Amino acid sequence: MPAMKPLEGIRVVDASRIVSGPVCAWLLASLGAEVIRVEAPGGDVTWQAPPWVGPDGVHRGERGPRDLGLSPLRRGRGKKSVVLDLKNEAGLALFRRLLAKSDVLVENFVPGALARLGLDDDTLEALNPRLVHCSITGYGHDGPYARRSSLDLVVQAMSGLMAKTGFPDGPPTKVGATVGDQVPAVYAALGIVAALRQRDRDPEGRGQKVDVAMLDALVSLLWDEPLDEYAARGVPERVGNGDPRGAPLDVYRTADGWVAVVVTAQGQWEEMAAVVGRPELAKAWPTPASRLQNRDAVNGVVADWCRTQKTDVVVERFRAIGAPVGPVQGAFSAVDDPQVRHREALVPLRHPDAETPSDYVGPAFPVRLSRADTDTAPADPLGASTDAVLRDVLECSDEELAALRDEGALG
Amino acid sequence: MPAMKPLEGIRVVDASRIVSGPVCAWLLASLGAEVIRVEAPGGDVTWQAPPWVGPDGVHRGERGPRDLGLSPLRRGRGKKSVVLDLKNEAGLALFRRLLAKSDVLVENFVPGALARLGLDDDTLEALNPRLVHCSITGYGHDGPYARRSSLDLVVQAMSGLMAKTGFPDGPPTKVGATVGDQVPAVYAALGIVAALRQRDRDPEGRGQKVDVAMLDALVSLLWDEPLDEYAARGVPERVGNGDPRGAPLDVYRTADGWVAVVVTAQGQWEEMAAVVGRPELAKAWPTPASRLQNRDAVNGVVADWCRTQKTDVVVERFRAIGAPVGPVQGAFSAVDDPQVRHREALVPLRHPDAETPSDYVGPAFPVRLSRADTDTAPADPLGASTDAVLRDVLECSDEELAALRDEGALG
Repeated sequence: MPAMKPLEGIRVVDASRIVSGPVCAWLLASLGAEVIRVEAPGGDVTWQAPPWVGPDGVHRGERGPRDLGLSPLRRGRGKKSVVLDLKNEAGLALFRRLLAKSDVLVENFVPGALARLGLDDDTLEALNPRLVHCSITGYGHDGPYARRSSLDLVVQAMSGLMAKTGFPDGPPTKVGATVGDQVPAVYAALGIVAALRQRDRDPEGRGQKVDVAMLDALVSLLWDEPLDEYAARGVPERVGNGDPRGAPLDVYRTADGWVAVVVTAQGQWEEMAAVVGRPELAKAWPTPASRLQNRDAVNGVVADWCRTQKTDVVVERFRAIGAPVGPVQGAFSAVDDPQVRHREALVPLRHPDAETPSDYVGPAFPVRLSRADTDTAPADPLGASTDAVLRDVLECSDEELAALRDEGALG
Repeated sequence: MPAMKPLEGIRVVDASRIVSGPVCAWLLASLGAEVIRVEAPGGDVTWQAPPWVGPDGVHRGERGPRDLGLSPLRRGRGKKSVVLDLKNEAGLALFRRLLAKSDVLVENFVPGALARLGLDDDTLEALNPRLVHCSITGYGHDGPYARRSSLDLVVQAMSGLMAKTGFPDGPPTKVGATVGDQVPAVYAALGIVAALRQRDRDPEGRGQKVDVAMLDALVSLLWDEPLDEYAARGVPERVGNGDPRGAPLDVYRTADGWVAVVVTAQGQWEEMAAVVGRPELAKAWPTPASRLQNRDAVNGVVADWCRTQKTDVVVERFRAIGAPVGPVQGAFSAVDDPQVRHREALVPLRHPDAETPSDYVGPAFPVRLSRADTDTAPADPLGASTDAVLRDVLECSDEELAALRDEGALG
């Protein structure tokens, strides 16, 4: 018996671009939704970036009709690609018909753009009262910034996240992952699945609007710590790799790299003092408060010892006393990590026409569900499912398809 | 008519500690679940950190019985606090009875700890086949790292996120928000709601295990970019605040701060060249490829102009030409941002006995649902709902409660 899928029977129209919306819709595809990605002729900017993965492997020449760049290959998994020109009247009409027959719309247009297409909230609700309409924007649909365009870097800057990342004597620092796009993407998926469950239980079966702002999501992420209390106490906004709330708690240089170490328990500190060759310090700084008061000295003792040891040795010695510890691993080396391999957290990306996967990898759906299959089909080449979807979902005849193509509705 | 709640009728037992589990369960409470937080006598370490918010306001003296620290005040919103000693036989029996009458268990014990309490996966399933059991761990329940304890800092280090954050000539850098805890928390909530929808549609109404590893979640976050391709191309792992894929695209110093600027369109570049007083550059570097080839020079021109201008002026001039731009705002100043205020992305935290909110704030549920009320009741003082929950859910009599208290089951 095949595993069930949590979103079986749900049809999603993904009319989004670049990162946040496409990632959200990929999460929904992983949960079993039928996802139809509606793209403009030519696709978004992510379709322009080589290398290309095509039926015959990877190349860097001109993009062929069934070639995919790495972003569409990754974020398009589990989706059917349909090209519709929403600036064409007939193309827009097809989009409306598709929404009328779908459960979810995911989009990340700037506020107002859908209304200019004649699809304001009231019209969408009239078109399909069951529709869950998820909009991901920089700042939301209301308030003084509502009309501004945004991007990951800008939201990282405005949320305070950059100001809080880095060293006290260094500049504000960008987070090395697109958290400004992806955290909202996960929140959007959560909001959508919650709205679907609410619809299931609503006697009238109504959908609703799911409004996710990138700024809200990053502010939420930051303020799970009491930043207002830190400010009142005069804690610097950037604290580097340590933490003003504890010691030893930092990232230390080793003879051949870096290691992250946290001491959480009294016994661990006593044993650590012995490991670093300073057993007398267990009594000199016997309490968390005394270690915090002498934070620089405590961190210095640990740092001095780590500098003389290889990373593997530090990890092994500190792990033996139960302290959470880990090497700072390279940004590109997760593919080689034994746990990542074991968990299959990164999976090969396969072109739909290829029998074997490419050498490139992408993230697996990062939640393991014991009774659900979260694998997805490979991504579609641009527009590869236009005809099939219009036939199957909208019951277009061959004559209609030909006419639509002539009109320019399909790009 | 009151707004519906997506998780109405769902009872969650939150047996988790510190950050990831408690944040996940708070998200579920915001979506309308009844959340019962089961805490050990004394509570977890987050109950030990002053200042205290009590019935009479904020203080830093000894913690009173109804006082809450800032973390429980924030992460405990929408939850009932029940103190059970799971090391006590009668306490553990109550926990089992509670699980038998619940829909969801959220926990972040290290792998094996629940089994040592006699609650391995098979036992849990036999106890309540409808239960959705969500486990958040550092590395998951299988694989070579499964038994290791972990924390945000360590997972940031091991995932490659620290190696990718910071400047090429600087050290690996910790992200200034606890993404290693919170991203898994949001994924966990997504997995739980998806599993509940699957259960709703399963003729046998079965729950399932939702296994979320902090490492998987951060690896997924990082690898939405093609890091394997970057590595092959020799891109450095840390690229600072810029991006090797475009220019102008960086964070620039201004006369009084920093500003994040991205040029996404050709027209924007032409107008920007004029704004920075170098209109001839529009033709000197006419294409994205030519600007990328001269990336340092292009960024240098923009940097030189920004350095002479106040942040407000840079933002206004670049916004006028449609470029995504924003000031680097202070880590502590989101409370004062007009958009954050308008969206009420940060909300005052109120003690349940107080008529007015405290001066401290916490994040609102970061998804706006048009038909659902995501506000929550204030957090409970430690153990404040022990008796009420045991009476209402487990139908314990006053005599039973007294006996349980005598036995030490309730701490």
